[in-house]
Amino acid sequence: MFETAEVGNRIDKRAFAREAPKVREALLKAQRALAGAGFSVVLHIGGVEGAGKSETVNHLLAWLDARGIQTHAVWDSTDEERERPFMWRFWRLLPATGRIGIFLGSWYTAPIIDRVFGRLTAAGLDQALDRILEFEKMLSRENVLVVKLWMHLSKRAQEERLRALESSRKTRWRVRKVDWKFFRKYDDFRSVSEHALRKTGTAWSPWHIVAAEDERYRTLTVTRTILAALTERLAAWKENAGKKIPAAPLPRPARPNVISRLDLKLALTDKVYERRLEKLQGDLNRLTRRLYDRRRSMILVFEGPDAAGKGGTIRRLTSCIDARLYEVISVAAPTDEERAHPYLWRFWRHLPRLGRVTIYDRSWYGRVLVERIEGFCQASDWQRAYAEINAFEEQLTTFGIVVLKFWLAIGADEQLRRFKDRETTPYKQYKITEEDWRNRKRWDAYEAAACDMIERTSTEAAPWSPVEANDNNWARIKVMKTVAVRLKRELRR
Amino acid sequence: MFETAEVGNRIDKRAFAREAPKVREALLKAQRALAGAGFSVVLHIGGVEGAGKSETVNHLLAWLDARGIQTHAVWDSTDEERERPFMWRFWRLLPATGRIGIFLGSWYTAPIIDRVFGRLTAAGLDQALDRILEFEKMLSRENVLVVKLWMHLSKRAQEERLRALESSRKTRWRVRKVDWKFFRKYDDFRSVSEHALRKTGTAWSPWHIVAAEDERYRTLTVTRTILAALTERLAAWKENAGKKIPAAPLPRPARPNVISRLDLKLALTDKVYERRLEKLQGDLNRLTRRLYDRRRSMILVFEGPDAAGKGGTIRRLTSCIDARLYEVISVAAPTDEERAHPYLWRFWRHLPRLGRVTIYDRSWYGRVLVERIEGFCQASDWQRAYAEINAFEEQLTTFGIVVLKFWLAIGADEQLRRFKDRETTPYKQYKITEEDWRNRKRWDAYEAAACDMIERTSTEAAPWSPVEANDNNWARIKVMKTVAVRLKRELRR
Repeated sequence: MFETAEVGNRIDKRAFAREAPKVREALLKAQRALAGAGFSVVLHIGGVEGAGKSETVNHLLAWLDARGIQTHAVWDSTDEERERPFMWRFWRLLPATGRIGIFLGSWYTAPIIDRVFGRLTAAGLDQALDRILEFEKMLSRENVLVVKLWMHLSKRAQEERLRALESSRKTRWRVRKVDWKFFRKYDDFRSVSEHALRKTGTAWSPWHIVAAEDERYRTLTVTRTILAALTERLAAWKENAGKKIPAAPLPRPARPNVISRLDLKLALTDKVYERRLEKLQGDLNRLTRRLYDRRRSMILVFEGPDAAGKGGTIRRLTSCIDARLYEVISVAAPTDEERAHPYLWRFWRHLPRLGRVTIYDRSWYGRVLVERIEGFCQASDWQRAYAEINAFEEQLTTFGIVVLKFWLAIGADEQLRRFKDRETTPYKQYKITEEDWRNRKRWDAYEAAACDMIERTSTEAAPWSPVEANDNNWARIKVMKTVAVRLKRELRR
Repeated sequence: MFETAEVGNRIDKRAFAREAPKVREALLKAQRALAGAGFSVVLHIGGVEGAGKSETVNHLLAWLDARGIQTHAVWDSTDEERERPFMWRFWRLLPATGRIGIFLGSWYTAPIIDRVFGRLTAAGLDQALDRILEFEKMLSRENVLVVKLWMHLSKRAQEERLRALESSRKTRWRVRKVDWKFFRKYDDFRSVSEHALRKTGTAWSPWHIVAAEDERYRTLTVTRTILAALTERLAAWKENAGKKIPAAPLPRPARPNVISRLDLKLALTDKVYERRLEKLQGDLNRLTRRLYDRRRSMILVFEGPDAAGKGGTIRRLTSCIDARLYEVISVAAPTDEERAHPYLWRFWRHLPRLGRVTIYDRSWYGRVLVERIEGFCQASDWQRAYAEINAFEEQLTTFGIVVLKFWLAIGADEQLRRFKDRETTPYKQYKITEEDWRNRKRWDAYEAAACDMIERTSTEAAPWSPVEANDNNWARIKVMKTVAVRLKRELRR
């Protein structure tokens, strides 16, 4: 694979002087078009040490308008990063639409190095690469253009380059001990990198291998590659902007289904409720403290029709958790920074640190519920969301986060009763809006969407618990009990 | 001071049942009005352990619409927080306009505890309180309503409360060893807290001391206090919304001044420039690496007229810094999340971690330059900004951050020449906009504003360096030399 970049590509000074201004001008023009377009650009600058990655970044910052670019050198990690799944550190750095993020070091760095030094098995590497594939596919569909560049040097050229850097007082600092350590593993790096690049070169995000020995050739190749990718994407964006794909017909639920067959008559008397509540609150107290001691974290997701009692249930839960250990995220309309990123970005933002609990009152499942039913996204968007959400939650659970998801189910009659009650109780009036009445008209469609969601995203590690919620007492106890049982099991180990 | 909260205030069950729904309804109404208003609310819940701070938060979350509230328990700190000035951890948590942030533990916690345990002198405490005063004053003027509640218990009542909590298996966990440790220092805490509260109770953010022994009394007092503060601020906001205070007349510069007397004829030949550049780049290389080794950080600010050469100077600087160690922040229009916070928020966001360099291409000084001249903020806003900026930079420098500020000065003729050059050079065209031509017409006003700025914000720890920039060579060398000299001095120690 890398042989193609070892054939001695060079560009002479005159040719460079002729070509460079043209590329530069075109790049700037494309960047200005990007600023007004609905996508962002991730530039991945990878490759061997000494191949001029830093110089390339400097060139790009000089040629482009630096005001639309952020450079990220991902190298050491902070405790805030280590306390979240691996990809969190990259999610937080994703550029907003119209902007360019340059990554020196990326999600490829750790798996490749770990494999070379035997800290990762071949299967482990492939698993990591599969996750990367999913991630980049999602980015590409979420309006992020990922341009991946790999700077290559032959073994001989790398050695010469490192020696040349070392021989000058001015550049000696740039050669670290670790560079020689890596150089001694050149062949391993080469074979692992080839494997990684082969596995992750895709139609939506191909690898561009750049012969890096000659600076002029490298610079022109890199900038032309970026220009081509950007131009192509701008054209595609222009063509599709404003195009509406006709909405999918509203789904109708098959009955009985996992929701309709719930026995909504289940209820608890106040006396039984009070007794169990007290016991469960004590349990959850201890369990969440133990969660903290064990440096585990937990995510609870609440979904369900309007007025299903999500808020009240969450309050019963949180009232027994140390206020320092939990956070409730109520999901409403996204801010413009959130809208300028892939839809999962605003949920990644709030992932708990180790030992903490994050409770989402509505969640990323909005994508396959309200966004699907109300046509806020295209059919292809919510259809791919199941797999994206499963991939997201898999990252959470394999990191050791306890994930539980609750669907609070009420009957249409009970919802009507609660809506009316809200309208007549002064301090509840804020809870009822026009939108609630509108959603109610699509009751069946929401039920069908919820069934699809539960079917496609309930996993052993992150299961859905449908909860009979016509009776608040029953629902609250069932939720708390489910959390307590799961925590006990997780913390026993 | 606290005696007023030890007179046995109680509310009986019936009175509470009568009053609570009224307060709750009014609070919710106020919160809905807040959602559409142009300010945010910081609720500070402080006071002695065992006084029901957590329960109060639970009550508030139950009574208010939890969707507009975020609770922050500031207690341990992450390394990302410890690597920035103390207040960074609070800045990042400030609520956006229309929202409420509840703080359990705050900027008061550490100074009070440190004073009680002798880690802070009396003078050190007063200095910390002065900074807090500045901070809260700024918040208040930047549309943040700060409501400060202090839950008080007498010594006897606290002891009883801790014993009562310990005696039940259900609540025993809530009493930590540190609570008893603190209790043994009750008298010291009382006197230090009194001192702190006396010093920081202001017209714009008074303290509300709440007798916390009786839960019903505490709950009603807290909620009524918040309601009153919120109602008052809403009325003030409504009255002032849309009111335009007539713009101040454009300033005219006194000449000679610190800018006009610069000798813009200063220049370097290319040969001298190249030689010095090479030497300085090598120096800056070593120095920024040493900065990293010593875990110090640096902030460079660049201001100056359009086309003064800020971008080019920054590129010469960054090309010799390890790409992993610096970040360039180009300041353009704020995002809506940024607009929903005090104006310094978007600069706090980007403060460097230890060992890193952040370069601001334009900065917080926009407040007293473009915002002043173009009337983007009221005269009172930019007038107070000098003191706020000085307070901000003092936090940076006392934390050990090296701060340098450069004013790149060019002549009006030279600017015209560069504008024309930009218009005719294809790859420079993006740099010139209508706005540049408009700004140019106010050349004198900008010069006067810059002189005011340099006069009021140049300090020994964070000095302004005016730079003769008609000749790019001269300007770049002078900037790099200034940075190198300062770094050498800072890193010698």
